[in-house]
Amino acid sequence: MTSLKTPLLDTIKDAADVRRLPQDKLAQLAAELRAETIDAVSVTGGHLGAGLGVVELTVALHHVFNTPHDRLIWDVGHQCYPHKILTGRRDRIRTLRQGGGLSGFTRRSESVYDPFGAAHSSTSISAGLGMAVARDLAGEERNVVCVIGDGAMSAGMAYEAMNNAGAMDSRLIVILNDNDMSIAPPTGAMSAYLARLISGQTYRSLREIGKQIAGHLPKFVERGAQRAEEFARGFWTGGTLFEELGFYYVGPIDGHNLDHLLPVLKNVRDAKTGPILVHVVTQKGKGYAPAEASADKYHGVVKFDVMTGAQVKAKSNAPSYTRVFAESLIAEARRDPKVVAITAAMPSGTGLDLFGQVHPERTFDVGIAEQHAVTFAAGLAAEGFKPFCALYSTFLQRGYDQVVHDVALQGLPVRFVIDRAGLVGADGATHAGAFDIAYLACLPGMAVMAPADEAELTHMMATMVAYDDGPIAVRFPRGEGVGIERPDRGEVLPMGKGRLVRGTGAGDVALLSLGTRLAACLEAAERLEAAGFAVSVADARFAKPLDRDLVLQLATGHAALVSVEEGSVGGFGSHVLQLLTDEGVLDRGAVKVRTMVLPDTYIDQDSQARQLAEAGLDADAIVAKVEGLVGTAKAGLGNAGLGLHKAG
Amino acid sequence: MTSLKTPLLDTIKDAADVRRLPQDKLAQLAAELRAETIDAVSVTGGHLGAGLGVVELTVALHHVFNTPHDRLIWDVGHQCYPHKILTGRRDRIRTLRQGGGLSGFTRRSESVYDPFGAAHSSTSISAGLGMAVARDLAGEERNVVCVIGDGAMSAGMAYEAMNNAGAMDSRLIVILNDNDMSIAPPTGAMSAYLARLISGQTYRSLREIGKQIAGHLPKFVERGAQRAEEFARGFWTGGTLFEELGFYYVGPIDGHNLDHLLPVLKNVRDAKTGPILVHVVTQKGKGYAPAEASADKYHGVVKFDVMTGAQVKAKSNAPSYTRVFAESLIAEARRDPKVVAITAAMPSGTGLDLFGQVHPERTFDVGIAEQHAVTFAAGLAAEGFKPFCALYSTFLQRGYDQVVHDVALQGLPVRFVIDRAGLVGADGATHAGAFDIAYLACLPGMAVMAPADEAELTHMMATMVAYDDGPIAVRFPRGEGVGIERPDRGEVLPMGKGRLVRGTGAGDVALLSLGTRLAACLEAAERLEAAGFAVSVADARFAKPLDRDLVLQLATGHAALVSVEEGSVGGFGSHVLQLLTDEGVLDRGAVKVRTMVLPDTYIDQDSQARQLAEAGLDADAIVAKVEGLVGTAKAGLGNAGLGLHKAG
Repeated sequence: MTSLKTPLLDTIKDAADVRRLPQDKLAQLAAELRAETIDAVSVTGGHLGAGLGVVELTVALHHVFNTPHDRLIWDVGHQCYPHKILTGRRDRIRTLRQGGGLSGFTRRSESVYDPFGAAHSSTSISAGLGMAVARDLAGEERNVVCVIGDGAMSAGMAYEAMNNAGAMDSRLIVILNDNDMSIAPPTGAMSAYLARLISGQTYRSLREIGKQIAGHLPKFVERGAQRAEEFARGFWTGGTLFEELGFYYVGPIDGHNLDHLLPVLKNVRDAKTGPILVHVVTQKGKGYAPAEASADKYHGVVKFDVMTGAQVKAKSNAPSYTRVFAESLIAEARRDPKVVAITAAMPSGTGLDLFGQVHPERTFDVGIAEQHAVTFAAGLAAEGFKPFCALYSTFLQRGYDQVVHDVALQGLPVRFVIDRAGLVGADGATHAGAFDIAYLACLPGMAVMAPADEAELTHMMATMVAYDDGPIAVRFPRGEGVGIERPDRGEVLPMGKGRLVRGTGAGDVALLSLGTRLAACLEAAERLEAAGFAVSVADARFAKPLDRDLVLQLATGHAALVSVEEGSVGGFGSHVLQLLTDEGVLDRGAVKVRTMVLPDTYIDQDSQARQLAEAGLDADAIVAKVEGLVGTAKAGLGNAGLGLHKAG
Repeated sequence: MTSLKTPLLDTIKDAADVRRLPQDKLAQLAAELRAETIDAVSVTGGHLGAGLGVVELTVALHHVFNTPHDRLIWDVGHQCYPHKILTGRRDRIRTLRQGGGLSGFTRRSESVYDPFGAAHSSTSISAGLGMAVARDLAGEERNVVCVIGDGAMSAGMAYEAMNNAGAMDSRLIVILNDNDMSIAPPTGAMSAYLARLISGQTYRSLREIGKQIAGHLPKFVERGAQRAEEFARGFWTGGTLFEELGFYYVGPIDGHNLDHLLPVLKNVRDAKTGPILVHVVTQKGKGYAPAEASADKYHGVVKFDVMTGAQVKAKSNAPSYTRVFAESLIAEARRDPKVVAITAAMPSGTGLDLFGQVHPERTFDVGIAEQHAVTFAAGLAAEGFKPFCALYSTFLQRGYDQVVHDVALQGLPVRFVIDRAGLVGADGATHAGAFDIAYLACLPGMAVMAPADEAELTHMMATMVAYDDGPIAVRFPRGEGVGIERPDRGEVLPMGKGRLVRGTGAGDVALLSLGTRLAACLEAAERLEAAGFAVSVADARFAKPLDRDLVLQLATGHAALVSVEEGSVGGFGSHVLQLLTDEGVLDRGAVKVRTMVLPDTYIDQDSQARQLAEAGLDADAIVAKVEGLVGTAKAGLGNAGLGLHKAG
């Protein structure tokens, strides 16, 4: 498969082998591990830059700590490919992010070396503290080590955990992996703070100077030299913030230099004190020239050529929904100066990098801080602005209380642009946007839309700019649109109104789609009509407010009504059923109703098409569902004409 | 109504009048305002201690700042009663927290002096930053002032906002109201940090010493005197942490001394710099001896006698669900050493204060930090412990992503104990627990229970201790149980199984209750049986896994099936409808099904009983719903016997 020469790496079956290696071999192991990581990702795609930045750190951690007895928790987990290679998963490393293969993140079910799964940012310190407390309660002896990036430190969750760890004085080791580049360029005071440090002198000389300073202080101080030394150290080395939170700060040290890393990690391992923060400076993409030279350090890549770094981009037939959103909002913002946009450290993922190029003064990247992002938007809305808060569905979960309490309850017109709604492919279940319809449509006063295609998204953007009566959300999936022509300018849609897309609104079968499953519904309709059924297909556009007239018309005008959405139970279909039962439509047995939703299980990484098939939401599944209701072919010829007039 | 003499307060129609008062009258105004606050809360109940702590601060803020043009945002808002009295709401202040009266929190719809509504903690800096950015974008001139307590500073959201504000260098004033007592005794490193400050010397003399220190530093320093002064100031006055986040720190100052407050606030108002944090030290309950002497400083009180401070407690017929939970868990923890309990700064509200008295080493108060609380629990569960994470329904929204990503996706057996589920009375819509069934039952692998009474809760606690296969939640309402006898020890319930409580499981009408609405269902059943109907009443116990057999049996055995829950659409009823349509039960028109859920609106403060009536979830509403399906009396006598055998 590959012509890589990795003689030392070939001897590593699991982390115990890393510990058995003499220290002077570790640099070579790191070099081979780096080459193997690059080669593997070149065939799978995935997160490359983050892993390359921690190759030496990964080797050092497994050499110094007794994993898996010692718990090693990788925050986010997208930097864990070298870790996977060293912990018994090298033979499957070229299945990364593929259907049936290794996850692109840490995962408990995959290995005992993954004590806590991750994928969302900033969870490691909380989990690690829980494990440290468990160790102490059980009277066990082990180290708990969390490796967290500087970008993840902007999330409130990390602060909550550090604050609590400091107060509990629990023995916990946090490695701050400071690469000054989480996903996008760094934002927030934390970044500035860390940058300030690195610009200073080396740790050792600073420590010496710190001691001199400390010598000057006691004559003024009542509380004695210890605190003075702590502060002087903080002053010089920059750990003050962490020291204030109760951590013992060590650093910064060069995370690519094993001669620096190993003694510090050994000291920390043997310290047996309260929480310690080790500040390690690394370079994302380290050791692979194309990654080092790239603006985003190959954060996430598709397959690429190892020699040239050229990425093998798939041919695109249509713009992504992300791009359609961005272009639409750019145009709308030209017409309306009140439009502003907010991202939580995902400018390129959400398309707000494009928006920011045109409207930089109206673009706000608040860092990995979804809670703040939502309420910051609420503050802007309270002052009459039109904030578009662009987040992935799965990350909006982080700001759910803020959506409920700060936005919906107050009826503030914050616009939520929810990308990656539904199944997301290679990132797997941790990034799926399965629940947003359920958790948003239950909120009084919240409007929830989903476009069927990119032209619809353009209309919905115009609608969101115009609608100022309360909160409104639009959700759309990862990936390309259907290639439909887009209008130059979107039209403002009537609130809570869907549209009949195919058929007469009366007949045998009605398919009621929310969102981009419309294409599958139309394909299913073709096939059903070919079998003699009269099929209506409607695009609900709104999960809330629900188009009551449309739903009631479809239910009373057909023998069967099937709703289809790429979301969990509790969402659009549930609202349809609630309406139909409230109105007594199902009392008479005149219509068979089914809701097609995501199954009650987590769907692992795979192509989006295969995930949709697995979920039972593709055209085949829709046809099968309908056939279960009305049979495989229209029996009575008398009515067949109704169905055939549209058949292909 | 009262014999209070408040000659100065009587002249204050709104905040403009406070600004017109000469400075030497403000202390008298504060004294009258304090007396009026105490008197008002003595008749309404509510949050007293927090408001008494900020009387002088409230007067000073409205005197110095040009409210409402300047935006004044009270974090949480439970300290806003003095603010309401000064801003045109004194005439309604004795309607606080009553049905139709003033909210117990700030509220945009109530007054222009409430620019941002609150009730949940730690939102003010995010909202204020949004307003400050809006001001700058609009080219306007105004101050934005956020008043936030020290307890609220433990929430990650406040950190996210400060981090972002510091980076943006936006002009924003944050008043840190440090009373060292948010709701419970302080937890977290932040508290220790603030405590350390206050124990030092006064601000002015520290500042002087700081300057001397600064004089010593430059000889070692490359970056010059400014940063040295900043650090020296931070070192002496304790603002380092805030300075690190990019704020200019001022304080600490005595928040009850107008001569200290007014000049500082004026300076800050006129400073026109980036974000400023003013550290004000106050005493919760200040100026009312019974509050000052009370352990919780009269955080939340019922009606009381002003002279004695004696609170008028309502007679209790049954223990609260909170207490039943706590007592059950205490007993279970005696038998199982793996049981641990976690609260986010609500030990008394959740009953974990009782648990902590018996099992202090197994009780963890992590501060106002719900995100961390959930994932901390996940870490404990990953190590084989049985964490009970006790949160209010409305606050679990803060940890939703952690429930999804860190707990449910990994299948970790974290036990969620969700108090204040459903309508909560005087705290109103901001504290209602309306959405938890919808946002939890959509998660694969999550079990969701709701007890019908306190005996059931005891069984469910035993069930949660025994169930180790994945995450499980129990939700119960605020307030008392029904007075039923409790077993000495709970029984482990079969997972996903409900129970038939009344009737034969066949007849005219089936009522399927989830949770404590069972009592209303039984009352409705009595009345329906008296009208000749054969009624079955079932207690679902589980929203998930749903008791499929029970639901299908009830649907096929009755002419009408009505589900009842104190939760929003998307929850239990939606899962019932999903099952019934999936199984084709409604295709035949043989049963009329309705789901009774909370209405699609926010329900304001009132008694819980009146809120339930307004929501259409009391016995009257259930009877009316059923009568709408089957008529007001059983027509055919032939079947009446079936219905009458149980009628009263």
